[in-house]
Amino acid sequence: MYPIDTSVETTHVVLPPDTNHYGNAFGGTIMSWMDIIAAICAHRYCKGACVTVCVDELQFKKPIKLGDIVTLKARINHTGTTSMEVGIRVERESFELDEDGCYKHPTKTHCLSGYFTFVALDEQGQPRPVEPIRPRDPIDIKRNKAAESRRRDRLARKSR
Amino acid sequence: MYPIDTSVETTHVVLPPDTNHYGNAFGGTIMSWMDIIAAICAHRYCKGACVTVCVDELQFKKPIKLGDIVTLKARINHTGTTSMEVGIRVERESFELDEDGCYKHPTKTHCLSGYFTFVALDEQGQPRPVEPIRPRDPIDIKRNKAAESRRRDRLARKSR
Amino acid sequence: MYPIDTSVETTHVVLPPDTNHYGNAFGGTIMSWMDIIAAICAHRYCKGACVTVCVDELQFKKPIKLGDIVTLKARINHTGTTSMEVGIRVERESFELDEDGCYKHPTKTHCLSGYFTFVALDEQGQPRPVEPIRPRDPIDIKRNKAAESRRRDRLARKSR
Amino acid sequence: MYPIDTSVETTHVVLPPDTNHYGNAFGGTIMSWMDIIAAICAHRYCKGACVTVCVDELQFKKPIKLGDIVTLKARINHTGTTSMEVGIRVERESFELDEDGCYKHPTKTHCLSGYFTFVALDEQGQPRPVEPIRPRDPIDIKRNKAAESRRRDRLARKSR
Amino acid sequence: MYPIDTSVETTHVVLPPDTNHYGNAFGGTIMSWMDIIAAICAHRYCKGACVTVCVDELQFKKPIKLGDIVTLKARINHTGTTSMEVGIRVERESFELDEDGCYKHPTKTHCLSGYFTFVALDEQGQPRPVEPIRPRDPIDIKRNKAAESRRRDRLARKSR
Amino acid sequence: MYPIDTSVETTHVVLPPDTNHYGNAFGGTIMSWMDIIAAICAHRYCKGACVTVCVDELQFKKPIKLGDIVTLKARINHTGTTSMEVGIRVERESFELDEDGCYKHPTKTHCLSGYFTFVALDEQGQPRPVEPIRPRDPIDIKRNKAAESRRRDRLARKSR
Repeated sequence: MYPIDTSVETTHVVLPPDTNHYGNAFGGTIMSWMDIIAAICAHRYCKGACVTVCVDELQFKKPIKLGDIVTLKARINHTGTTSMEVGIRVERESFELDEDGCYKHPTKTHCLSGYFTFVALDEQGQPRPVEPIRPRDPIDIKRNKAAESRRRDRLARKSR
Repeated sequence: MYPIDTSVETTHVVLPPDTNHYGNAFGGTIMSWMDIIAAICAHRYCKGACVTVCVDELQFKKPIKLGDIVTLKARINHTGTTSMEVGIRVERESFELDEDGCYKHPTKTHCLSGYFTFVALDEQGQPRPVEPIRPRDPIDIKRNKAAESRRRDRLARKSR
Repeated sequence: MYPIDTSVETTHVVLPPDTNHYGNAFGGTIMSWMDIIAAICAHRYCKGACVTVCVDELQFKKPIKLGDIVTLKARINHTGTTSMEVGIRVERESFELDEDGCYKHPTKTHCLSGYFTFVALDEQGQPRPVEPIRPRDPIDIKRNKAAESRRRDRLARKSR
Repeated sequence: MYPIDTSVETTHVVLPPDTNHYGNAFGGTIMSWMDIIAAICAHRYCKGACVTVCVDELQFKKPIKLGDIVTLKARINHTGTTSMEVGIRVERESFELDEDGCYKHPTKTHCLSGYFTFVALDEQGQPRPVEPIRPRDPIDIKRNKAAESRRRDRLARKSR
Repeated sequence: MYPIDTSVETTHVVLPPDTNHYGNAFGGTIMSWMDIIAAICAHRYCKGACVTVCVDELQFKKPIKLGDIVTLKARINHTGTTSMEVGIRVERESFELDEDGCYKHPTKTHCLSGYFTFVALDEQGQPRPVEPIRPRDPIDIKRNKAAESRRRDRLARKSR
Repeated sequence: MYPIDTSVETTHVVLPPDTNHYGNAFGGTIMSWMDIIAAICAHRYCKGACVTVCVDELQFKKPIKLGDIVTLKARINHTGTTSMEVGIRVERESFELDEDGCYKHPTKTHCLSGYFTFVALDEQGQPRPVEPIRPRDPIDIKRNKAAESRRRDRLARKSR
């Protein structure tokens, strides 16, 4: 399977229970949304049960506010024997007024990306092999290599 | 704008709080998901505030179960002076085992469709005009006519 | 059983998580409340499991706001061999100040009505017969006939 | 106003998020439901803002299970200068099979009662007077006296 | 076991869904938090299943507001043959500005206390004995006696 | 301030809405709990508003199941000019039976740790300085150095 065939998209609107008392979406809420879409992506790819084993460096670049529409896009970047790394991109659309009091065309802003690693499980809850992903387009090959490098760094930090 | 430019997609997984004690997703949960995606679609189209004014005949054709992945796709079918009809299609993917104990490739099943009508509001909460949608492809023209006919039926029932 | 013996009432207060960022209750929240009370009504009537199969034209006539008290009243309007139509009436009470700064006696406002159809299920999840409802008062007979006519329209639209 | 004019009723069904991992409704969930209906009752009575100040002895007599229909009935038992005591009765209906495998007519079981005291607040958040309740029927007079006695006990314990 | 070995602590922040439309935390939300920490405390103490049987006089002394940090501390005060009384103390921290516009060191305010009684259950759902608690410090002995006296009062009211 | 003075503890029990349909707590739920306790810790430390800016490598070492009691402990590990790194340790307690059918004393299992970085904000939403943390005990010094090294790695990866 090619990475493009694994893409999942989901859209949320930031509602009062998703925000703190300053009107910002919680980091925890955004991470929950990322975990669910990543789990759907991994679950579909491995056609069965899987669990989150690792979340790599998330950097919140732009705030997400009450009323923003938030789009999450996920796809499989990399596979190991039994593991799958899912990359998730989070964008917001905000509605603002222009000088004539009209709504401007909302522009999408990239707020954060994240990398969630899952392991596929068999019915006894033991890791089971997954089909290797086949990166083909230059962008997919680049993402696959970045995932590979994150994995090496993680193992290096572990053995430190 | 063409209907295709208004399409929104969202993906959920049916979790314990979404189900009754028989393991079926609540009708009310599915309707909430439909209302949110329809509101996002209408909100983006009219670039501002809008409210649900009408929900047309929903028929639950197939059950949706705990653990199913549910995809909702929405687009603008029809516009009036200040109103927008959003059509939403709800599909589920279930994971089942084949005779060898392997997960079969999940097939998407159409579970229900629905039509939610919204009115665009200005800052005083009064209806405000929306840009007319321009159906172009045969399928969009067909949906636009069906929306037109639902609207006529609704007005007829009202005056009965 | 007479329709009056099937009536169920429930009362909610619109809280922050039930509203969008304009302070209006979500259409989806109201529909969830309607689905739950309708399910309780049908479940009691058929003394067992049942599922939502159809929701007929809902028209949101009046907005429902943060802080409003919302009363839902449901009763069985009509029965088929295995199906039950539940009518639900939704009213709000708002608290407003009079010219002396005192709270005026809140008046109940009819905001919307809806018709949810359920099918009774046996333990295998197959439709099972329900006892026929016996409309007796003029208002119940009128509601029964309206349900009958909605059903015919629905079948007509299906075969179109 | 007579106590009967203050009565509020609400109906819930115990769903998975309302239960612990033994299938029993949480004490905390039941208390939240009681607090909301009591607040609606007090809010309507005093026609404005009010806060919970005291909850008296709740005794859980019978368990409430996943799938039970739970009815809460509240009314004003007693008023002080600025306070209102709301009595709430909680009943469950369970569905069980008889010897022929048919659902028996569900019987209502009294599970617990509780007494929640609220104080009416003005716009500065200060206590404000409420209209005295007028118990008239023997049962209302009895409840009013019991509320009176709970209040005296509470004051006695405070000064101990 | 000594009461000190049974202490549990938990910390919440009051978020929009926990509050009513006046910005106060719901009584019901606070009671739910108290029930959960009390259940954790009792569950750990009796090393198994247990249910809430009784909640004694809660007095809300100070309001809890949106954005407050709320700390709950629970410990076993008293045991009967099969029952455990858990005492819970609820404190809030509010952040306020001093005359220089700086945040003052927040002071903890005691908002309410409560006493929740649980009964330990065996696998058939029948009461089962619990190990007696051994109050040793003067404060624990005082709390144990107060629990004893609440219990006597409760039995006295029951037989009245 | 010393790290020990910044410690916060919170206790949860894994309930049905926190789990997927395999009975495991969601990664997203655990991350939400971590974000909330970390925010409380940072909020108290900087005595005001702050936002999550970064989450470092989380590794889920042990599964967390329905019914487990989960304890989270957070403290400030490191401060920059306007940033604070909060370390969070997550442990579970499970209840299992021994060979005599009695509950064994539950042992605490370390399930995961995580590092959440926050930036303190002034009333205009701009970064504002925080008091430097003063690690003193050997363990605090070790954690401070590890935080320092995570920060350097992060900056290195950024510039790659």
